[in-house]
Amino acid sequence: MLCARSGWRALRRCASLPRAVRLRVREALGAREPAEAVRVQGWVRSVRSQKEVLFLHINDGSSLESLQVVADPSLEKRDLTFGSAVEVQGKLVKSPHKMQNMELQAETIHVVGPCDIWSFPLKMRERHPLEYVRQFPHLRCRNNTLGALLRIRSEATASIHSFFQDNGYVHIHTPIITSNDCEGAGELFQIETSREEEDSVEKSHFFNVPAFLTVSGQLHLEVMAGAFTHVFTFGPTFRAENSQSRRHLAEFYMVEAELSFTESLQDIMQVMEDLFKTVTSTVLSKCPRDVELFHKYIAPAQKGRLEQMLKHKFMIISYSEAVEILKQAPQTFTFKPEWGCDLQTEHEKYLVKHCGDVPVFVVNYPYDLKPFYMRDNEDGPQHTVAAVDLLVPGVGELCGGSLREERLPFLESRLQRLGLTDAYQWYLDLRKFGSVPHGGFGMGFERYLQYILGVDNIKDVIPFPRFSHSCLL
Amino acid sequence: MLCARSGWRALRRCASLPRAVRLRVREALGAREPAEAVRVQGWVRSVRSQKEVLFLHINDGSSLESLQVVADPSLEKRDLTFGSAVEVQGKLVKSPHKMQNMELQAETIHVVGPCDIWSFPLKMRERHPLEYVRQFPHLRCRNNTLGALLRIRSEATASIHSFFQDNGYVHIHTPIITSNDCEGAGELFQIETSREEEDSVEKSHFFNVPAFLTVSGQLHLEVMAGAFTHVFTFGPTFRAENSQSRRHLAEFYMVEAELSFTESLQDIMQVMEDLFKTVTSTVLSKCPRDVELFHKYIAPAQKGRLEQMLKHKFMIISYSEAVEILKQAPQTFTFKPEWGCDLQTEHEKYLVKHCGDVPVFVVNYPYDLKPFYMRDNEDGPQHTVAAVDLLVPGVGELCGGSLREERLPFLESRLQRLGLTDAYQWYLDLRKFGSVPHGGFGMGFERYLQYILGVDNIKDVIPFPRFSHSCLL
Repeated sequence: MLCARSGWRALRRCASLPRAVRLRVREALGAREPAEAVRVQGWVRSVRSQKEVLFLHINDGSSLESLQVVADPSLEKRDLTFGSAVEVQGKLVKSPHKMQNMELQAETIHVVGPCDIWSFPLKMRERHPLEYVRQFPHLRCRNNTLGALLRIRSEATASIHSFFQDNGYVHIHTPIITSNDCEGAGELFQIETSREEEDSVEKSHFFNVPAFLTVSGQLHLEVMAGAFTHVFTFGPTFRAENSQSRRHLAEFYMVEAELSFTESLQDIMQVMEDLFKTVTSTVLSKCPRDVELFHKYIAPAQKGRLEQMLKHKFMIISYSEAVEILKQAPQTFTFKPEWGCDLQTEHEKYLVKHCGDVPVFVVNYPYDLKPFYMRDNEDGPQHTVAAVDLLVPGVGELCGGSLREERLPFLESRLQRLGLTDAYQWYLDLRKFGSVPHGGFGMGFERYLQYILGVDNIKDVIPFPRFSHSCLL
Repeated sequence: MLCARSGWRALRRCASLPRAVRLRVREALGAREPAEAVRVQGWVRSVRSQKEVLFLHINDGSSLESLQVVADPSLEKRDLTFGSAVEVQGKLVKSPHKMQNMELQAETIHVVGPCDIWSFPLKMRERHPLEYVRQFPHLRCRNNTLGALLRIRSEATASIHSFFQDNGYVHIHTPIITSNDCEGAGELFQIETSREEEDSVEKSHFFNVPAFLTVSGQLHLEVMAGAFTHVFTFGPTFRAENSQSRRHLAEFYMVEAELSFTESLQDIMQVMEDLFKTVTSTVLSKCPRDVELFHKYIAPAQKGRLEQMLKHKFMIISYSEAVEILKQAPQTFTFKPEWGCDLQTEHEKYLVKHCGDVPVFVVNYPYDLKPFYMRDNEDGPQHTVAAVDLLVPGVGELCGGSLREERLPFLESRLQRLGLTDAYQWYLDLRKFGSVPHGGFGMGFERYLQYILGVDNIKDVIPFPRFSHSCLL
């Protein structure tokens, strides 16, 4: 029969070495027992040639640490350089050095791919600054710091999924392209098909209506919160902000959750705090060496601060209390603190410091400052909504959330005043058919990474940063 | 101190019921022991009022099954209808009925949010067709079939992350916005800031260069495969195809993986097959009832087919063998099968059927049919590249992959012939600095769900479908 498993062996390219057990660097370093015939593949991080012995360090991205290879100098060759790709075969033995558990005694070294070291922008044993490697978006993952960052980012991503999964949340892919344009005002990216550029705008809409990149999955999660009591999403969001700040990107990731049958803002804050602490503890325990690199070279004070933070409950103050604290502050601010005005970065910094450099929830913001969907607290004379921001040292606003207005008459009158009743008819519908008290929040993933690792510039915590005037690769 | 945990208790809205243990429907249904004081919250799926007893079914999205509530008829009230949101408090007891384990004897029933049943488009005890509920994107998640789909989708998402995590892959968020425009030709979405519409195109680029929505994360994963031997991504991808087909969306999700130090296409096929089987087994075992709904009402033959498929190795045939099979076929095709021409849907269908309605890998496609990055097999006279497609019954192409051309001279000459050398200088760089044999694949997530569940239209396996002329919400 022609359909049999014929042929595939013929596809296999002739392997250049006899078979030995293939180990990843992480596995080799963690091995408990010596092993006779092993193969390790990776990229050369250092070459040190002595009279009687040749030392290599091989890294394959599975861990920050490289595997030391010990070889006879006769195995050295011209293209065995820093940055080259190699396959080393030999014996895995206990290392006589304290710094490492195992090392590889090479029998053969095969250079799989040489490296043109003269034009390679990374240099052996150099601690390149983050600004320097940022210039080479296609090569910077080969740098130790970025490698560690990407492993941590991957682990944090997995941990976020597990946290919600373990707590019975349903994951929802909220849409990237949306026809909602009311929220983001001037900061939206609009999309068109590239070939229709010259047609009239009216005629050329691929979707019949103007379409934009999402700024938040919240409204779509609220749709789902009418069928599932716990939902979350974790995906890209977009802002066309013309900002070169170290805290803003045009494309960034957001974790968002929505809960039904909430009783108070406390329900939302509890999830925010649990998420933050669970993910951080997981990252610290699963990537200790990678995190240590940041806490040693990038932000020396961060480790102790994080440990303290994990031990204590986060603080909670009301917006009104916050304004009082700011008014009594011994320092003068550029923006005078006043009830009814937004908290500025300088205010957030002071509040966090005042509270002892710990994460602080600020709750119950002025009604007039916040979007239409936030729940009216029906208080006065200082009228507030059930909103919450989580402020953290160094980064400022890390999360934002609120109870949503689930009461049809409140929502109707607010949308009417804004002239948005038609656009949000579907959103009003959600309040007509089994509406429940609900709320949720979003956490900026890059800001989260910035905070736990103490990384100053947000461009250094994402694989391919996009910001105004820059979209490399 | 002002920063103390003052205030939050005041935030807590007055709870309308005394405290009892809050259980989700899934927890209540799975409880081993009766319990005295429990609270269950959810939406009413049925109301049946008899002379001496009132029956309700409550669903909260945690499972397909609803919890039966048994109450005294005196607890019935006008707004306790299908679709309303309720909180029921009472005793959890063993159910006398075979079909369910536990039921709730209600002491109080509180209607949290009524449902205007006259305008609510879903009706009690009606099995609405998928086409019908598709008209109500903000309400269709309250339908049993869509609810089951979304739970399965969530479980499959988690399982995909776990599969790669467990196998030592690093997760990479490849960019959504990209300046690469060469691959997608006319099918790209271009992005602009919405406020700059009237400026000249030249001046208004937010990123200084034209920017597009990604069609694949492959090239960016290849960047990462130069530092990590195993990487994957799982995110949205886009095509501006003007298609109303039941297999295409403008926004869809793709799982992509890239492996370094590959030895043959077999390495890639092994991961594709392992991924498919692991995720499918997990979904079958974690969501048995949800999957059963599809296999009972939507695609009755699918269950047995899936079980067979999980037991056997996938088939492998070469493109050349495939063309021979097609040429010898007793049927006539609209497109005559000919070496060097693309396989059409009719051909794929025949091949899958010919092989016994099982998944089939087709390998080694004509060099001239495939993109520049695929690895030259250096064969002849029928010149091929190391490409692979996975065809599955009903859906056609589910995955596509290839070995990538890692040899600098081959890639240089191919890019030069295409006039793409300048645009892909960075991609050539990857071959100058420690290049290694590598390859990868992408799997369409919606097509995967279509296949395992037997869902005919791709719009029914994604929460918010986007396609030409349609971008609702």
